[in-house]
Amino acid sequence: PVDLRSDTVTTPTPGMRAAMARAEVGDDVYAEDPTCRALEERVADLLGTEAALFTVTGSLANLLGVRALVRPGAEVLCEARAHIARAELGAHAAVFGVTSRTWSHPRGLVDLAAVRELLVPDAGPYFVSTAAVSVENTHNFGGGSVQPLDSLRALRELTAASGVGVHLDGARLWHASAATGVAPGTYAACADLVSVALSKGLGAPVGSLLAGPAAAVADARVWRKRLGAGWRQAGVLAAAGMYALDHHLDRVPEDHANARALADRLADVAPGIVDPAGVQTNIVVLDLAAAGIRTGAAEVAERARAAGVLVSVLGPAALRLVTHLDVDEAGCRHAGEVLSTALK
Amino acid sequence: PVDLRSDTVTTPTPGMRAAMARAEVGDDVYAEDPTCRALEERVADLLGTEAALFTVTGSLANLLGVRALVRPGAEVLCEARAHIARAELGAHAAVFGVTSRTWSHPRGLVDLAAVRELLVPDAGPYFVSTAAVSVENTHNFGGGSVQPLDSLRALRELTAASGVGVHLDGARLWHASAATGVAPGTYAACADLVSVALSKGLGAPVGSLLAGPAAAVADARVWRKRLGAGWRQAGVLAAAGMYALDHHLDRVPEDHANARALADRLADVAPGIVDPAGVQTNIVVLDLAAAGIRTGAAEVAERARAAGVLVSVLGPAALRLVTHLDVDEAGCRHAGEVLSTALK
Amino acid sequence: PVDLRSDTVTTPTPGMRAAMARAEVGDDVYAEDPTCRALEERVADLLGTEAALFTVTGSLANLLGVRALVRPGAEVLCEARAHIARAELGAHAAVFGVTSRTWSHPRGLVDLAAVRELLVPDAGPYFVSTAAVSVENTHNFGGGSVQPLDSLRALRELTAASGVGVHLDGARLWHASAATGVAPGTYAACADLVSVALSKGLGAPVGSLLAGPAAAVADARVWRKRLGAGWRQAGVLAAAGMYALDHHLDRVPEDHANARALADRLADVAPGIVDPAGVQTNIVVLDLAAAGIRTGAAEVAERARAAGVLVSVLGPAALRLVTHLDVDEAGCRHAGEVLSTALK
Amino acid sequence: PVDLRSDTVTTPTPGMRAAMARAEVGDDVYAEDPTCRALEERVADLLGTEAALFTVTGSLANLLGVRALVRPGAEVLCEARAHIARAELGAHAAVFGVTSRTWSHPRGLVDLAAVRELLVPDAGPYFVSTAAVSVENTHNFGGGSVQPLDSLRALRELTAASGVGVHLDGARLWHASAATGVAPGTYAACADLVSVALSKGLGAPVGSLLAGPAAAVADARVWRKRLGAGWRQAGVLAAAGMYALDHHLDRVPEDHANARALADRLADVAPGIVDPAGVQTNIVVLDLAAAGIRTGAAEVAERARAAGVLVSVLGPAALRLVTHLDVDEAGCRHAGEVLSTALK
Ligand SMILES: [Ca+2]
Ligand SMILES: [Ca+2]
Ligand SMILES: [Ca+2]
Ligand SMILES: [Ca+2]
Ligand SMILES: [Ca+2]
Ligand SMILES: [Ca+2]
Repeated sequence: PVDLRSDTVTTPTPGMRAAMARAEVGDDVYAEDPTCRALEERVADLLGTEAALFTVTGSLANLLGVRALVRPGAEVLCEARAHIARAELGAHAAVFGVTSRTWSHPRGLVDLAAVRELLVPDAGPYFVSTAAVSVENTHNFGGGSVQPLDSLRALRELTAASGVGVHLDGARLWHASAATGVAPGTYAACADLVSVALSKGLGAPVGSLLAGPAAAVADARVWRKRLGAGWRQAGVLAAAGMYALDHHLDRVPEDHANARALADRLADVAPGIVDPAGVQTNIVVLDLAAAGIRTGAAEVAERARAAGVLVSVLGPAALRLVTHLDVDEAGCRHAGEVLSTALK
Repeated sequence: PVDLRSDTVTTPTPGMRAAMARAEVGDDVYAEDPTCRALEERVADLLGTEAALFTVTGSLANLLGVRALVRPGAEVLCEARAHIARAELGAHAAVFGVTSRTWSHPRGLVDLAAVRELLVPDAGPYFVSTAAVSVENTHNFGGGSVQPLDSLRALRELTAASGVGVHLDGARLWHASAATGVAPGTYAACADLVSVALSKGLGAPVGSLLAGPAAAVADARVWRKRLGAGWRQAGVLAAAGMYALDHHLDRVPEDHANARALADRLADVAPGIVDPAGVQTNIVVLDLAAAGIRTGAAEVAERARAAGVLVSVLGPAALRLVTHLDVDEAGCRHAGEVLSTALK
Repeated sequence: PVDLRSDTVTTPTPGMRAAMARAEVGDDVYAEDPTCRALEERVADLLGTEAALFTVTGSLANLLGVRALVRPGAEVLCEARAHIARAELGAHAAVFGVTSRTWSHPRGLVDLAAVRELLVPDAGPYFVSTAAVSVENTHNFGGGSVQPLDSLRALRELTAASGVGVHLDGARLWHASAATGVAPGTYAACADLVSVALSKGLGAPVGSLLAGPAAAVADARVWRKRLGAGWRQAGVLAAAGMYALDHHLDRVPEDHANARALADRLADVAPGIVDPAGVQTNIVVLDLAAAGIRTGAAEVAERARAAGVLVSVLGPAALRLVTHLDVDEAGCRHAGEVLSTALK
Repeated sequence: PVDLRSDTVTTPTPGMRAAMARAEVGDDVYAEDPTCRALEERVADLLGTEAALFTVTGSLANLLGVRALVRPGAEVLCEARAHIARAELGAHAAVFGVTSRTWSHPRGLVDLAAVRELLVPDAGPYFVSTAAVSVENTHNFGGGSVQPLDSLRALRELTAASGVGVHLDGARLWHASAATGVAPGTYAACADLVSVALSKGLGAPVGSLLAGPAAAVADARVWRKRLGAGWRQAGVLAAAGMYALDHHLDRVPEDHANARALADRLADVAPGIVDPAGVQTNIVVLDLAAAGIRTGAAEVAERARAAGVLVSVLGPAALRLVTHLDVDEAGCRHAGEVLSTALK
């Protein structure tokens, strides 16, 4: 089937598998896995941070990253549909006692006025202090939207003045960079802690990284183990990540082109269902209601599935399509056909 | 001094002290304190719930109340300046792993459209499920505003349909009732768990209650002890609460009148600083910026303090005045004079 | 009835009630309650610490005290039947993530060899570090036994050498002092953080204190509020505590004499049920099995209750009697008669 | 170097790497990875449980396993040097609020009398209830000792009677079975939840499993994701686990023989340093003090390291050697020579 549910479904290519099979490994709990070390250094260099930590998932990288900035009982501010607020099962509160308040933006973007309104640094002994603001770039549920660099810089300035940290959920930071030409390190410079994923658009089977100051990363390493995620000969996975950075980073624009073409096709068939100009990266969110389609999202997804195309249901009238390296141009064109029919 | 910082500053009257001195007591951990039992039954009756639990603070009643509705990792939705979000030191996350998302309303009111947008019940094993919505009535930082009964009922209907709970932070529910004539039990009927305070406008030295279903309250009793708040001969405090319900509930409208008069006076002096018509209960929030006053809120508060009037600083350009039973009409008039001068 | 279940059942005397009725009060959350302040200073002076914090319960004082010494994921060592391990509902783990390991001693005493065996300070990034040892003096479930000063000093030396803290659960430290003549401050000098109770043998209705370094106590004050226990005009309770220190501290030896006499009486009737020489303070633990009594503890307690004497069931064959200021010599003698019969 | 620090250092063999390279994979968060599914079913069958969950580490399997049995504030009992108490960074308390009490046994074995003494099921609303007992088989820090089946069965009977659960930390359950001929499923039948490791003696790079009832495992799957450990195409690692079960399970006795030979050799050189008859599996713990050796453990380890042999320092006078598939008989003999010299 053509699987557009998420770019997490990507599977390792033969070349990546070969790289994994010949990976040099050691015990990563003892920081002795040379491939993990190399990957961590490479990503730290790429992002311009002192250090990085290889983690099982982007959720774990985010969990440890927000923890690095926010004490129990303090708050992180984020957009209401941010991955940390919606798709990490409340772990930030459940595991680390981090509370949150949110602003809402249709595309998931930073709303500086809203942040300014919510921000309360150093609130004293009776009130909740804002300790960090978290930004997701690109914003998954906002439709793969790219956070404007200017607004990230303004956020950095606003928060730095009051000692508030910035966490950047960069699960798809590669896509933001591919779309804008802004280097990952330039985005990372707007934040204190940054997570990036290898297992989504880059096609690795497992793995993300948390990058930031050496002391924060060292502390995150201890907490990674405390959470039961201190893996051993993880070099077999790090090798996949190295391969992904070598071979799959450059092809991300293809996914963007496929997503845009898909949006174009569907907007032709069902005007209003998506604004193709707003499809900046590899994610297409469809608004059935806006297109006047009464068929429910679950029903459309089921029709598509029956025809060999898998998509995600985001809500009663919302679908999400994510392009990635396991679906080529022809596959996306086919998905467009199938969905055009399913939407009718 | 005339202390308008908060209605928490109220101190027991001679009559209340006498009631405390003759209170019948027992060991409340063993549920053997007759005065605590009587108070709990009385408040449960007043609110129309099966049971109630006497707690050290309103924060504790809220903490246990939200916990009764939300498992670790699930979320409660509330307004961004709700007491549970701002003034309880993040305990809901820090102690019980409850995560939260927020909508913003200038007066702290329920925004049904926003709730509908945020609400995600039964989100499955990958996403955060909304387990409860919390409403504060009256809303402290929103200026003592009363939640319209219609919107509470609509919220109840919206959430009940999807199995989501409603928590009512009724620290000043008495004031809402006094302002609208709607009985406390009518408000309580819109929620699953309700907290009410005795130590604020009612003048008791210590104590709030959590009211709701018997099983939830029994469980809250165990967690009250686990949090180190299972007090012993608390009947001495419950007696103050009983006295407050007997003697101070009826006089709440005086505080409302005093607050309105204070707002009238200040709006005359500094047009725009507050809309007197919006002062529904015993809280007056002043917006210095809106009145074109450039003096900072801290500076104004300091000037007033020097002249014997204490007020709260809510933000760089925001002050809060709270009327209560320890400041009579003359005291409020005096405060109006002092503040009129301090604002210049 | 003669209630020997616990010394927590003590109720305020007329004198204490009068003191409460005339207490000067203020808002203790703002640290403005003069009676709370006075009590905190007095207890800090008594124990020779920089500061003290007035808390709702001894459990809360212990919870905040252990937290001051142990980070989440680190461990506290204690005797297996210590109050913090048995009678605080697992709060240390549930609220603050503190883990524990235990040694077992028939009388609940410090076993230096066992502590030495368990102690692992600074265990590095892979193992649990011992951060504190907690000692209960007197030890409630150990039969009100007094920790020998020598062993407390040896423990202090042992732990200080490795940077491990000592927490002293002194809920009945007054009783240890009364039994040995060692000043409370001398015991407190063997620990970093100390809790003491006013609501047990001293007869106050509610309240304990946590005493220690000023910074730790200030931090505990914030966490007290976060746990929902930041009370307001608590001076009414602090006044009871002041009164208790003034009038009830000196009479503690009477309770010890009553307990010893009760033990003597019961050992005569049922040889082996208790060693009267081991009854050092106000607690008598009866071992029915050791006396060859086959009647279950619950049955004996029920018989006594029917005859107007209340005792605690500690286990299938164990009962506990606690003497205190609400039961005089005659009452204890009566209890001895009733129990003698009930044991047959 | 000959690395005897732990059997976690084992690295994948060429055959295992080939199996990984050809693994069929899918998205395991969606339970669509066929190799993960196959591994989980195979281990569940092997242990005779309804289901199993593939986890990043044995620590995570234990963390989720104990959680399945113990609510926040309830307790698990275990031996004082159990892996869950010593080597999981206090996660059970820090993440899930589980408290613990411990008994001590020189070889880490179940002490039924001690368990009986500590066990307090259904302790009511004032005391900590025992919810589970955890047993480690083989016991790592106890010297790879095997828990006698009789005592596991007696423990099962004791706890079942009172509704208390049993958790089996079977990181090296394969070794217990190899040593005794008792099938893994027979051991597993004495417990409710069982963890087993693939990454230690079996030589897989990463991975353990938690096995138990289907409902508990399904819930553990959600919490695995909440902790940030819901990996994606983990089939590449599951394939290594399958290969390990196919090819490395049978050779575990070689490691036992090597360990015994090593112990024999060292006991000859330094009588008292270890009782070879007590070396039942692949772990040798050396007690330098018992052998009258004054050189510190760290110094001996350093000397060995300089000569190409790595061992673990367990304490000031304790070393641990662990045999495994990456060190053959010759390697172990060499290690014996080097250590013989280093001990002098
Ligand atoms: Ca992938
Ligand atoms: Ca008050
Ligand atoms: Ca008054
Ligand atoms: Ca008392
Ligand atoms: Ca391995
Ligand atoms: Ca190998």
